[in-house]
Amino acid sequence: MISRVLAADLPRHVGEHVMIAGWLHRRRELKSVTFLIVRDRSGLAQVVLRDHGDQPDGLTEETVIEVRGLVTASSQAPGGAEITDPVITPLSGPAEPPPLEVYRPAITAGLPAILDGAPTSLRHPVLRAGFELAAASVAGFRDALDGLGFTEVHTPKIVESATESGANVFGIDYFGRPAYLAQSPQFYKQALVGVFERVYEVGPVFRAEPHDTARHLAQYTSLDAEFGFISGQRDVMAVLSETVAGMVTGVRQRAAVAAGLLEVSLPEVPDPIPDIHFADAQELIAGQAGWDPRGEPDLSPADERWLGDWARKEHGSEFLFVTGYPMAKRPFYTDPDRQRPGYSNSFDLLFRGLELVTGGQRLHRYADYLQALAQRGADLASYASYLQVFAHGMPPHGGFAIGLERWTARLTGAANVRQVTLFPRDLHRLSP
Amino acid sequence: MISRVLAADLPRHVGEHVMIAGWLHRRRELKSVTFLIVRDRSGLAQVVLRDHGDQPDGLTEETVIEVRGLVTASSQAPGGAEITDPVITPLSGPAEPPPLEVYRPAITAGLPAILDGAPTSLRHPVLRAGFELAAASVAGFRDALDGLGFTEVHTPKIVESATESGANVFGIDYFGRPAYLAQSPQFYKQALVGVFERVYEVGPVFRAEPHDTARHLAQYTSLDAEFGFISGQRDVMAVLSETVAGMVTGVRQRAAVAAGLLEVSLPEVPDPIPDIHFADAQELIAGQAGWDPRGEPDLSPADERWLGDWARKEHGSEFLFVTGYPMAKRPFYTDPDRQRPGYSNSFDLLFRGLELVTGGQRLHRYADYLQALAQRGADLASYASYLQVFAHGMPPHGGFAIGLERWTARLTGAANVRQVTLFPRDLHRLSP
Repeated sequence: MISRVLAADLPRHVGEHVMIAGWLHRRRELKSVTFLIVRDRSGLAQVVLRDHGDQPDGLTEETVIEVRGLVTASSQAPGGAEITDPVITPLSGPAEPPPLEVYRPAITAGLPAILDGAPTSLRHPVLRAGFELAAASVAGFRDALDGLGFTEVHTPKIVESATESGANVFGIDYFGRPAYLAQSPQFYKQALVGVFERVYEVGPVFRAEPHDTARHLAQYTSLDAEFGFISGQRDVMAVLSETVAGMVTGVRQRAAVAAGLLEVSLPEVPDPIPDIHFADAQELIAGQAGWDPRGEPDLSPADERWLGDWARKEHGSEFLFVTGYPMAKRPFYTDPDRQRPGYSNSFDLLFRGLELVTGGQRLHRYADYLQALAQRGADLASYASYLQVFAHGMPPHGGFAIGLERWTARLTGAANVRQVTLFPRDLHRLSP
Repeated sequence: MISRVLAADLPRHVGEHVMIAGWLHRRRELKSVTFLIVRDRSGLAQVVLRDHGDQPDGLTEETVIEVRGLVTASSQAPGGAEITDPVITPLSGPAEPPPLEVYRPAITAGLPAILDGAPTSLRHPVLRAGFELAAASVAGFRDALDGLGFTEVHTPKIVESATESGANVFGIDYFGRPAYLAQSPQFYKQALVGVFERVYEVGPVFRAEPHDTARHLAQYTSLDAEFGFISGQRDVMAVLSETVAGMVTGVRQRAAVAAGLLEVSLPEVPDPIPDIHFADAQELIAGQAGWDPRGEPDLSPADERWLGDWARKEHGSEFLFVTGYPMAKRPFYTDPDRQRPGYSNSFDLLFRGLELVTGGQRLHRYADYLQALAQRGADLASYASYLQVFAHGMPPHGGFAIGLERWTARLTGAANVRQVTLFPRDLHRLSP
């Protein structure tokens, strides 16, 4: 049996009879010749039909075909080779016209149409390339953390109580009992620091976000890491820097073609990434930006954009750590800065003027948890299982969470995170 | 600042002053000397106290400590080196006694006690080792498929309709609308064959299993793969064989210490793995085993055990493919064997006499899906989104799904899959 050759490999087979297989990407009929462009996972191949009688019926775009023929050098064809004297066999019935014309270089359809027709729209090389970038980034995330002695874990996505934020959880009927979808693996990854010291998880998290914005999803992929025996938030920042550098390396090594197609400019990750304290960042903005954010417990999108520009001009960096976020906006397990009341040992990492990652040092002493929960007026009973972790000896530890889709959107310049989400889920969308 | 040395690296620091950090695994008081065994992610280290006054108060087992001292060669110590003249600093308050005595070599606690106290029981080196095997297996799964041109994907876990099996789904309140937790990524991975040709996903799947057995979980980790342009189920079997071999290699390369601790005998994966048709397997059992399974649409556990023994004796293999499973027990998207009515182009892979993987070729033509669903009396409207995938051109394709916890249980000889599941979810268990 003749085995399949990928489109990208055709130039190495000039003069040979080969078989290629893929989707009929585009069919162009000229007077004396028909060109078929065949798309497979490696790219595009050109097939030349001189005799119209060679074509089986129903050769509409997106039909899956096998083509056997002679590989012929041609300066006009992609990669410099095309297939002539073809014999074409459809592998399924003729395809219906796709909701989005996959062969057009530019995507003109609106986002709802793209998302409604996702199984075929995603075939568009530009949309597809974003997901190749995402997969390569995840591989880089893993490589970096594997190299640092982390263990990969998989934790429960169905949880007993909605303890982390209370709001925005999805309820589920668990064998007749109420339960919730996990908003993050936070508690489990902390518990597992007690087991493995250094853990990461790549998995879905669920937020019942009532906001219909370009940034919010009901399910996204979280790249979580947590590790013990740190001396402070700077150890967490150092591991995060190495991880982000690994993600960029992952894209460079595994998705160079996709990055080229999307004209992605891959960022340099400086070592170290520059950092600024939250309070100093507000002072800087107040002094130079034309507005005064001092006293606000969080940075506004405008603040983040301004700081992004500042980091580029001042440090030549597309990344900036903002450290010491106010405790008021941080979860109860955040380690407070005891030297600087009101501030915490936690940070955000801005990438191109947008918050990409939140991380920091956590509390690790049992007594500190009791106090932190009491201060927030929390019901201790609903935290019993979590608290047990800290009663049995936990080291100083910290970690971070990177939203995969937000990272990919920032990297590709996608205006809406849904463009870089396979089958997004949001307030309105539950299919496909 | 003196930086931390891991326990396993101590022998390389004899004669130096170092700092180690970890959990106080065991404290043994003798007449003139106290031994502290410190556990970190790399293993155990011995600390020798000659003067009882050196010890801080509350040094109970599982307390997290830093120890600074001189590394001294000692034939009695793990690895041949121990720490003498120590200065000990607790990193958190004294630990409560754990529910399971982590330092005892044998685990005597029952499974419910182990699971109730999971955050600390998992610290037991034997329990922990099972998860190191699991993580190494997942890494091997990815390495194998990355090498074959697969793309990693992450698909929705909240779905609109419970179409795959109908039963055993968890219902969820999705912004006031009913929705379900995904029982498998089957439909999405098939749709993505149309995009990437070859995809895999490592993620949670959810089954509202009303059975309280040693094999059933409400959430488990599924290692899913699907790919196009196959010529039949044998192509799927070949990729699965390579993948399983990659998982074994992953364990050998990344978790050798854990495998040694568990006394795991890693299987050889023959190339090719022997196979037998379902009907021939039943004939063989009827002729030799002492019972007659012919006419049954599935293999019983006794059948699988007998076939496992047979494969070992006849082929020297711990793996056996059983091909051509009856259509009656396969999902509607299974490709039927048109030469042998009633049978399918799908298989199970048995490992040590137990079904480990189900896979096979799927239908790929739109008309075949319409017919298959009609035959089963399904409501076509609820499959509209899925069916669209096949209206737009899909190649012959197939795939498989490996249950990670079942694999790890079989590898380690765990009698109950819960022993190798981080924080299992089942009919009764929703925490920790």
